[in-house]
Amino acid sequence: MKTIKVGLLGLGNVGTGTYKTLEMNRKHIESNTGLSIEIAKILVNDINKKRDILVSPDQITQNIDDIILDPSIDIVVELIGGIEPASSYMLKALENKKHVVTANKAAVAANFDDLMDAAKKNQVMFRYEASVGGGIPIINALNTALLANEFEEILGIVNGTTNYILTQMTEYGLDYADVLKVAQEKGFAEPDPTADVEGIDVANKLSILISLVFGIRVPIEDIPTEGITNISKEDIRLADQFGYKIKLLATAKKVGNQLEAHVQPAFVPKDHPIASVSNEFNAIFVTGNAVEDLMFYGKGAGPLPTGSAVMGDVIEISKAIAKGAAFDHHTESKAVKMLRYVGEGQNKYYVNMMVKDVPGVLGSISTTFGAFGIGVDSVLQLSKDANINREVPLIFILHEVTRARLDEALNKIRSSKFASEIKSIIRVM
Amino acid sequence: MKTIKVGLLGLGNVGTGTYKTLEMNRKHIESNTGLSIEIAKILVNDINKKRDILVSPDQITQNIDDIILDPSIDIVVELIGGIEPASSYMLKALENKKHVVTANKAAVAANFDDLMDAAKKNQVMFRYEASVGGGIPIINALNTALLANEFEEILGIVNGTTNYILTQMTEYGLDYADVLKVAQEKGFAEPDPTADVEGIDVANKLSILISLVFGIRVPIEDIPTEGITNISKEDIRLADQFGYKIKLLATAKKVGNQLEAHVQPAFVPKDHPIASVSNEFNAIFVTGNAVEDLMFYGKGAGPLPTGSAVMGDVIEISKAIAKGAAFDHHTESKAVKMLRYVGEGQNKYYVNMMVKDVPGVLGSISTTFGAFGIGVDSVLQLSKDANINREVPLIFILHEVTRARLDEALNKIRSSKFASEIKSIIRVM
Repeated sequence: MKTIKVGLLGLGNVGTGTYKTLEMNRKHIESNTGLSIEIAKILVNDINKKRDILVSPDQITQNIDDIILDPSIDIVVELIGGIEPASSYMLKALENKKHVVTANKAAVAANFDDLMDAAKKNQVMFRYEASVGGGIPIINALNTALLANEFEEILGIVNGTTNYILTQMTEYGLDYADVLKVAQEKGFAEPDPTADVEGIDVANKLSILISLVFGIRVPIEDIPTEGITNISKEDIRLADQFGYKIKLLATAKKVGNQLEAHVQPAFVPKDHPIASVSNEFNAIFVTGNAVEDLMFYGKGAGPLPTGSAVMGDVIEISKAIAKGAAFDHHTESKAVKMLRYVGEGQNKYYVNMMVKDVPGVLGSISTTFGAFGIGVDSVLQLSKDANINREVPLIFILHEVTRARLDEALNKIRSSKFASEIKSIIRVM
Repeated sequence: MKTIKVGLLGLGNVGTGTYKTLEMNRKHIESNTGLSIEIAKILVNDINKKRDILVSPDQITQNIDDIILDPSIDIVVELIGGIEPASSYMLKALENKKHVVTANKAAVAANFDDLMDAAKKNQVMFRYEASVGGGIPIINALNTALLANEFEEILGIVNGTTNYILTQMTEYGLDYADVLKVAQEKGFAEPDPTADVEGIDVANKLSILISLVFGIRVPIEDIPTEGITNISKEDIRLADQFGYKIKLLATAKKVGNQLEAHVQPAFVPKDHPIASVSNEFNAIFVTGNAVEDLMFYGKGAGPLPTGSAVMGDVIEISKAIAKGAAFDHHTESKAVKMLRYVGEGQNKYYVNMMVKDVPGVLGSISTTFGAFGIGVDSVLQLSKDANINREVPLIFILHEVTRARLDEALNKIRSSKFASEIKSIIRVM
């Protein structure tokens, strides 16, 4: 049986999960592919660290060159995480004619073109399935089975930590801070949760999806990104009353020859399939011009689900090596019509404000919205929730408007004598 | 640009959808693959039929040999449907070294091994993505990105007609017959709906999935298959009360070294992702030992979604031709452990019976279930629904039991003086 040799960079959670996935299913993989896949060398930080898998001392190294310069190694699997040194290691591996597999969203989002170009120049394969949806095979589907489609829209719940927090807030009527604390205790959230709760992780994944689906590069700095730290249990309760759930969404959609994209919490209609994606699960919803609506649902993180995706890429490359066809055909341009990226575009919004409980308030505020060309979809005034200053919550669902225009209208309303506070502004899907 | 020539067998709904998918996205496909795909010849029944696509007279033929024996044709796409002559045509095409793509579940389920063997023997590619989930790329995912998994279970809603009927019955409290009639008027159900409503279409798809995922052949005759014609609006209402939705499910699961499989309506817990799959949508839910739970959701039928899947296969083969690698590596056995197929196995059941409204009924019937070793999960007695004979509905949710054992217990209960009628027996997931 032909043996394919793999060099692993990193043996943390995902590295260990990849190792375990291979060991657990070795016989199954061999019987399905006729190939033996061997993890020949592993780059680690600490040679003496105690691990829950059995690796032999001559299998591990602290020197990247032991892997990248080893002519017997076919595939380098990068599972270090972070932009550097991961990106440099991958580029070096590609230059040394190694095929490369990675689960690293930050590195792929930051260096998409460089990595693709290096793979093309060196006629090797570069795969990154695990970098977007963990175990969900979305990249493979977009790159193969769905190629006969032009895509109109992508919607994704691609961060398990924030989806877990929002789900728990929704199900138990809890505050953000309390759920975050429990999530951290249970290991569902990092001690420093910034990259998750501020939407940075999601923006990295959206940037990759946009490159793949729409053929243009949008760096994460250019994607309007908002996390979930300002979502209150009141927002979630009100969303429920209007028929929505609040989800942190990655969105990209074509409007004519423009592309809109953003990472924001959003009101999602309860009957949309993505609304029922709960807790640590992820889902990616795409709309193609032939296939129509399609959703992929699964575990977006975790050692074994991620290991499944990494090993899927390794197997694809291994089979291509065995067939003598381990290279990709690259065409000049992925994009037929060059799309122009315009940021977040127009959206519907939920606005929750505190207003004086006096006659004429609703009329005055509605008139102001109207003057700015903003239509009102629904309104809810909750006099029973009045505070000690006799102020009451007034909630609007507004028709499509740019955020800049909405902010202008809200500034005008804020400066009136009626509204004392704008409590929240959340996009409505 | 290299041109790949395709011969199309059949120009009905799916044939036309495939043709349209290619024309609509031709530029996109060329820019993504660097290849031009041309439909060179089309086999039709009626040359003079009026069509809503423009085909030139020398593009169509009534003679299969014009396609199968044409050395310039690379790929034969079979979209005739039905077992014969489609299977014979595909086998002949494979023997003539044509790659074959099909959307035909009946032919693939009936002749899986023969088609695979012919492809192997002739070193060509055989693809059948559209035969199971329409536009949903489940076959591709199982054959590529998910290869590093052993699968424990598949659950599918793979028939849009029956899912549409059950959804409408649920949402509007309607009877089966009334919804079927409207579905037929709207074109969502065939004039003769047998293959759909009796579960035959689903059994074909399940047989294909079992071959692929579990590596054994189970002909549809051996799959216990029940359709939706006996589901009443009362069953749906009671399911709702117990926290379930009724769905027509294709199920296959490993229990030790045994494989259980069946096509049956089932009570699906409302919080299971598959419960929220409504109307004409399909979904396939798989559980792998690395990737864990994964669900694919989309349009299971329709000209363009099916065209998307067919063209996805055509593009895969075209790219392989361009790389000089248009063949598959075949290994001796797909199955590591040979599974033994045992039919439906043990399941939980919902039983709705009419009983006399007299003291001692519940005790007597529960005792009988106990004597057969059948545990009771929940029970509901509805005295307010008494009929003129003073009989009342008594509803049980029962713990795992074989259907044979359950039938024995129910025969015993039927023969007692208490129960007058067993109204329905439905599996509970």
